[in-house]
Amino acid sequence: MTDEPMTATRAWAASQIRQAKAAQGFTWNDLADAIGRSVIWTTSALLGQQSLQSEQAAKIIELLGLGEDVKVALLLPAIRGAQAVDRTEPLVYRLDEIVQVYGPTISELVAENFGDGIMSAIDFELDFARVPDPKGDRVVLTLNGKFLPYRVW
Amino acid sequence: MTDEPMTATRAWAASQIRQAKAAQGFTWNDLADAIGRSVIWTTSALLGQQSLQSEQAAKIIELLGLGEDVKVALLLPAIRGAQAVDRTEPLVYRLDEIVQVYGPTISELVAENFGDGIMSAIDFELDFARVPDPKGDRVVLTLNGKFLPYRVW
Amino acid sequence: MTDEPMTATRAWAASQIRQAKAAQGFTWNDLADAIGRSVIWTTSALLGQQSLQSEQAAKIIELLGLGEDVKVALLLPAIRGAQAVDRTEPLVYRLDEIVQVYGPTISELVAENFGDGIMSAIDFELDFARVPDPKGDRVVLTLNGKFLPYRVW
Amino acid sequence: MTDEPMTATRAWAASQIRQAKAAQGFTWNDLADAIGRSVIWTTSALLGQQSLQSEQAAKIIELLGLGEDVKVALLLPAIRGAQAVDRTEPLVYRLDEIVQVYGPTISELVAENFGDGIMSAIDFELDFARVPDPKGDRVVLTLNGKFLPYRVW
Amino acid sequence: MTDEPMTATRAWAASQIRQAKAAQGFTWNDLADAIGRSVIWTTSALLGQQSLQSEQAAKIIELLGLGEDVKVALLLPAIRGAQAVDRTEPLVYRLDEIVQVYGPTISELVAENFGDGIMSAIDFELDFARVPDPKGDRVVLTLNGKFLPYRVW
Amino acid sequence: MTDEPMTATRAWAASQIRQAKAAQGFTWNDLADAIGRSVIWTTSALLGQQSLQSEQAAKIIELLGLGEDVKVALLLPAIRGAQAVDRTEPLVYRLDEIVQVYGPTISELVAENFGDGIMSAIDFELDFARVPDPKGDRVVLTLNGKFLPYRVW
Amino acid sequence: MTDEPMTATRAWAASQIRQAKAAQGFTWNDLADAIGRSVIWTTSALLGQQSLQSEQAAKIIELLGLGEDVKVALLLPAIRGAQAVDRTEPLVYRLDEIVQVYGPTISELVAENFGDGIMSAIDFELDFARVPDPKGDRVVLTLNGKFLPYRVW
Amino acid sequence: MTDEPMTATRAWAASQIRQAKAAQGFTWNDLADAIGRSVIWTTSALLGQQSLQSEQAAKIIELLGLGEDVKVALLLPAIRGAQAVDRTEPLVYRLDEIVQVYGPTISELVAENFGDGIMSAIDFELDFARVPDPKGDRVVLTLNGKFLPYRVW
Amino acid sequence: MTDEPMTATRAWAASQIRQAKAAQGFTWNDLADAIGRSVIWTTSALLGQQSLQSEQAAKIIELLGLGEDVKVALLLPAIRGAQAVDRTEPLVYRLDEIVQVYGPTISELVAENFGDGIMSAIDFELDFARVPDPKGDRVVLTLNGKFLPYRVW
Amino acid sequence: MTDEPMTATRAWAASQIRQAKAAQGFTWNDLADAIGRSVIWTTSALLGQQSLQSEQAAKIIELLGLGEDVKVALLLPAIRGAQAVDRTEPLVYRLDEIVQVYGPTISELVAENFGDGIMSAIDFELDFARVPDPKGDRVVLTLNGKFLPYRVW
Repeated sequence: MTDEPMTATRAWAASQIRQAKAAQGFTWNDLADAIGRSVIWTTSALLGQQSLQSEQAAKIIELLGLGEDVKVALLLPAIRGAQAVDRTEPLVYRLDEIVQVYGPTISELVAENFGDGIMSAIDFELDFARVPDPKGDRVVLTLNGKFLPYRVW
Repeated sequence: MTDEPMTATRAWAASQIRQAKAAQGFTWNDLADAIGRSVIWTTSALLGQQSLQSEQAAKIIELLGLGEDVKVALLLPAIRGAQAVDRTEPLVYRLDEIVQVYGPTISELVAENFGDGIMSAIDFELDFARVPDPKGDRVVLTLNGKFLPYRVW
Repeated sequence: MTDEPMTATRAWAASQIRQAKAAQGFTWNDLADAIGRSVIWTTSALLGQQSLQSEQAAKIIELLGLGEDVKVALLLPAIRGAQAVDRTEPLVYRLDEIVQVYGPTISELVAENFGDGIMSAIDFELDFARVPDPKGDRVVLTLNGKFLPYRVW
Repeated sequence: MTDEPMTATRAWAASQIRQAKAAQGFTWNDLADAIGRSVIWTTSALLGQQSLQSEQAAKIIELLGLGEDVKVALLLPAIRGAQAVDRTEPLVYRLDEIVQVYGPTISELVAENFGDGIMSAIDFELDFARVPDPKGDRVVLTLNGKFLPYRVW
Repeated sequence: MTDEPMTATRAWAASQIRQAKAAQGFTWNDLADAIGRSVIWTTSALLGQQSLQSEQAAKIIELLGLGEDVKVALLLPAIRGAQAVDRTEPLVYRLDEIVQVYGPTISELVAENFGDGIMSAIDFELDFARVPDPKGDRVVLTLNGKFLPYRVW
Repeated sequence: MTDEPMTATRAWAASQIRQAKAAQGFTWNDLADAIGRSVIWTTSALLGQQSLQSEQAAKIIELLGLGEDVKVALLLPAIRGAQAVDRTEPLVYRLDEIVQVYGPTISELVAENFGDGIMSAIDFELDFARVPDPKGDRVVLTLNGKFLPYRVW
Repeated sequence: MTDEPMTATRAWAASQIRQAKAAQGFTWNDLADAIGRSVIWTTSALLGQQSLQSEQAAKIIELLGLGEDVKVALLLPAIRGAQAVDRTEPLVYRLDEIVQVYGPTISELVAENFGDGIMSAIDFELDFARVPDPKGDRVVLTLNGKFLPYRVW
Repeated sequence: MTDEPMTATRAWAASQIRQAKAAQGFTWNDLADAIGRSVIWTTSALLGQQSLQSEQAAKIIELLGLGEDVKVALLLPAIRGAQAVDRTEPLVYRLDEIVQVYGPTISELVAENFGDGIMSAIDFELDFARVPDPKGDRVVLTLNGKFLPYRVW
Repeated sequence: MTDEPMTATRAWAASQIRQAKAAQGFTWNDLADAIGRSVIWTTSALLGQQSLQSEQAAKIIELLGLGEDVKVALLLPAIRGAQAVDRTEPLVYRLDEIVQVYGPTISELVAENFGDGIMSAIDFELDFARVPDPKGDRVVLTLNGKFLPYRVW
Repeated sequence: MTDEPMTATRAWAASQIRQAKAAQGFTWNDLADAIGRSVIWTTSALLGQQSLQSEQAAKIIELLGLGEDVKVALLLPAIRGAQAVDRTEPLVYRLDEIVQVYGPTISELVAENFGDGIMSAIDFELDFARVPDPKGDRVVLTLNGKFLPYRVW
């Protein structure tokens, strides 16, 4: 009985990728280009929050010169629960506070413009951009989710 | 000793506005136009999460035919703490889950593209749009915050 | 300034309906028939967890002989957050425990049969039945939600 | 003194089974057929939430070509506490939200149709099905529990 | 619109009964005799944790000289959730600590003597007795619940 | 520096005993007889919740053929804190719910029958029995604790 | 139906006593002398944490010139749960921190000097003194509780 | 890179000392005498809650025949946070409950006898004694802390 | 029985003062000057976190034209527990995060520069200043607390 | 597959630095001088809460005679989440209590002197000083953060 296979988690793969990427000077955009996906999706997939296909994992491994065990780990199911993020880290907390401050407003506007329902977090995509600004450049995140109406039966 | 002034809270003003607005058929866009602000800022201000100026409060009161006591309540300080939103309401929870799933990714991309710092939630604006889509229209939220680098001294 | 309109909540309407229904001997099925919806949807709507249309509210009010203020309250937005249910009440806790015990199993089977995604709780319906059994009748709940695949971009 | 036997937990056995099953292309249905039980019961048993009999464990081990230590681990008591499931994983959270939204409704209907009591989570079975639908296939879960009336003495 | 009916809760009825009982010198045993039930069941019912039948409520009201509104409140559904008890009150905490200290032992003995299952808290009765003892009288609680085996399917 | 002695905890001893007992077919009653104590006390002591005397530990070790290191671990102080039990395991949760539902009732009856004080959880014993019943055998737990009156000074 | 009797709580009585005592210049020692009890017991009783006898309540009411309704409230059961104290108030927190820092030490010394058991918080008394000290006077609290050995059976 | 030095924590040193002390039959009083400090201070220091001086650590090591690595660990900073104590262990919980029940009383008496301020938990000492009593010996803890008045500026 | 005196809390007094101050155009500095104290101490006292003397309360009441009932409320004990502040309000949260980020650093520097002890939060003063800066003015808070060494005995 | 690189965390680097610094008699000021930064920034950086540049890490490693693996760890991203500090450690708790007691006051004064906004915790610096005082030296912390006004759009 050995517990080695248990350490080959998505978190371990993420840490291997971060190290290899830093050592070889790749950016997340480079990795995204290698598999033909957006930079947000690719980064979240390599950090463990999306399911990867075998060819995608293979390309990443090849590009970064990592071993077969990293590839195996990358094909494990995605980990999307709360333990995958520390919400008290200052950057993440700012996002949390935005939900706190603007949550009721978004509810009102979705209700008024779409009716009774939600913005999907599954049929969803997110875009990241750096927007130049003379007073200090800005982070721009675009959240784009399908409206899902409540079913009535 | 009377406790009446204590009931004229921002939450009470928000509820008065919601009722008058519904009864008279106004939209949040109408209210935003009346004070010359964006619909997100206006809605969050009227729900209690932004500070209003006296003229802004006056215009809202006039438009909706509300009393002086609602105006007084609207000039109270903004309430932006966690008690102002129920994070388990399904729509708000989806936003919460997006932070959970994509928080580490956003951290990585801000660090790589900007350096050590955060996206401000104060020097921040949010845009709301309904985007038509043949498979079902989409909610699009644009978060736009200034990058703030950590000070070194 | 009066706080009366604030007491006309969905919870207050639910309590008015429960009392009138009990006093006059109606069942939830009777109320469901009156508005032409399933008994689960109707019950959850009258308890405050679904949005009602004006004609639906009118029919309920008429059937039960309740006042206009109950109708107004019934047209308020649905309340679906965690405060609307006490999860430590023994019956609700059994449902909670079923999620605890069978959650990982359902995850495995959805992944194997559908791929990476979830069962929607929005495009969702629930059916309730009493099934006779010589060893003791059984409660049968059928949860039916659309599979939503994670978007890749 | 060695701590090896302590690592042969139900969780460890579950992980061994998941890996062997994936490597050899078996489905949960195949494993269920091998021991003559339903797919839900079999999956939850192999994930650690049900007690297995010695012959059942033996058949699984044989089918998947696993060692005696996995069999020993499979015969440990079931683990059904909250630590066995991450309720913030998006799929499990949807189930959680369904309890939140429909819990009071189910309470009302059980009370009206059965009297004062609960739906058992012990004398209970769960069925899983994929139901085709032109607008997108659906996950259908059937919860079937014995009604237990409160004892009066 | 009046909120009076909402104050006629089970908790309010319990408080009315406790006061009338104290003022007139009745014991819980007297009330139990009046309705022909055990003292534990009767006390928990009058405190709000069991469902009463109309004749039982009528007898209690008559014995204590209480009004019709108390009777109505007594016929409301039982309240058995966590909010009905303060677990940090010293007496209740001792019960809590007994579960903490002896819980694993009871699990072992149920498993060894009955198999995989639980002691029901629904098909359950509890007995209370004062047992004389020269070193100080003792409180004796007898918990008696049906064994429920896990269903296998 | 070695950390081996730290692994010889009461929890480790409990796990060694459970395994040896299962492998050799002993029951908790056998172990209780070996040291001349009740089955509840013996089981809780071997699971780590009571302090054992040297001779008692020696007898258990001898009976089960375990090593000296298990005996040393058995003589460590008892572990009675909350971490020793998972209160969400279904069987333990039923006990928890019984405290929730019947706690206020027990408070009332102790106050009425004994005065202001508590049932001790220290000068306390617990008895376990399987009681045959044609409708299904029953688990009977008898809690027996000294009444302790509050001191007045 | 009136909810007045429900406001005559122990907390309300405590507030009435504090105000009358302050207005008339009495100290807690004066009140303790009036009923012939220690100052700690008397203060905790009047704040709601001990059960008072009818003559004791009568003497307090007479001394402070309070009404019969306060006396009735003083005879209600003691409230000793966690809601009766704010543990984050700085003075109370210091006591909390003392338990945090010295708890393990007290456990060791009780075990070594008395054996396996606890210091009772029921058969317990507490003394308060101001001890002069040239570097600043000191608060001295003496906690005196009966040792209770764990029962073995 | 080795992680051995990280295991030489204060908690590890405490466990080494407890074992050596038990094996050689020393009491905490013996250890206190060896360094010329009170038994409470010495015990809490050796358990990790006080800072030791080099000569004190040397004397303890010599008396118990422990190694240099234990001495090094004893000179690490004190650990006084909440993780150093399990507040649900029955003995510690009794102390916790005493703070719960008597906290408001102590606040009142400090305010009345000293003014606005607190009892220090830093300029503080604690004494432990076993006091014989025919009805059962008693644990007596004396808490002695400097009064600190709130600064006004 | 009236519950009016219970509403004359420190929180109510704070709200009365905030309103009168705003209506009449006073600043916190004006109020501080009126009683000859610093602006931080005065503001915290009027918000309820410090004990006021009778003359101080009188001066404030006179300056703002408030009633005797506000003065009575101002003389109630200070409220310094956690319920007096919403730590999720964005401004307060930033202070909270500063403790989170710099807490270990301050511990290290206090230990190195002063020895084993703490910075008092009681013998403590706080200063507030607005410091002009061409890149944006700055908030400067000076925390000044007496070092308290741990007592050794 | 080796998990060694995962142990080279910022926390591990901090512990290596603390040990080397203590063994060689350096102060935090010495380390700050070596990299030309303030003592607060340097200490927090070496404890893991700031991002270090390669030359800074190199100088620290050289000064303390540490290995290349410590340098690599020092260049990992900063860890600023809540897990990096134990807020119940007495010194840190005093800071926490200061936020609790003075938070609302600071909110009032920022609002009055700057308008609607916050004090940045990012564009922020902190200064530490020991100030001699005949009654006992004082810890003085100066918090200096840029005022950020809420954006209006």
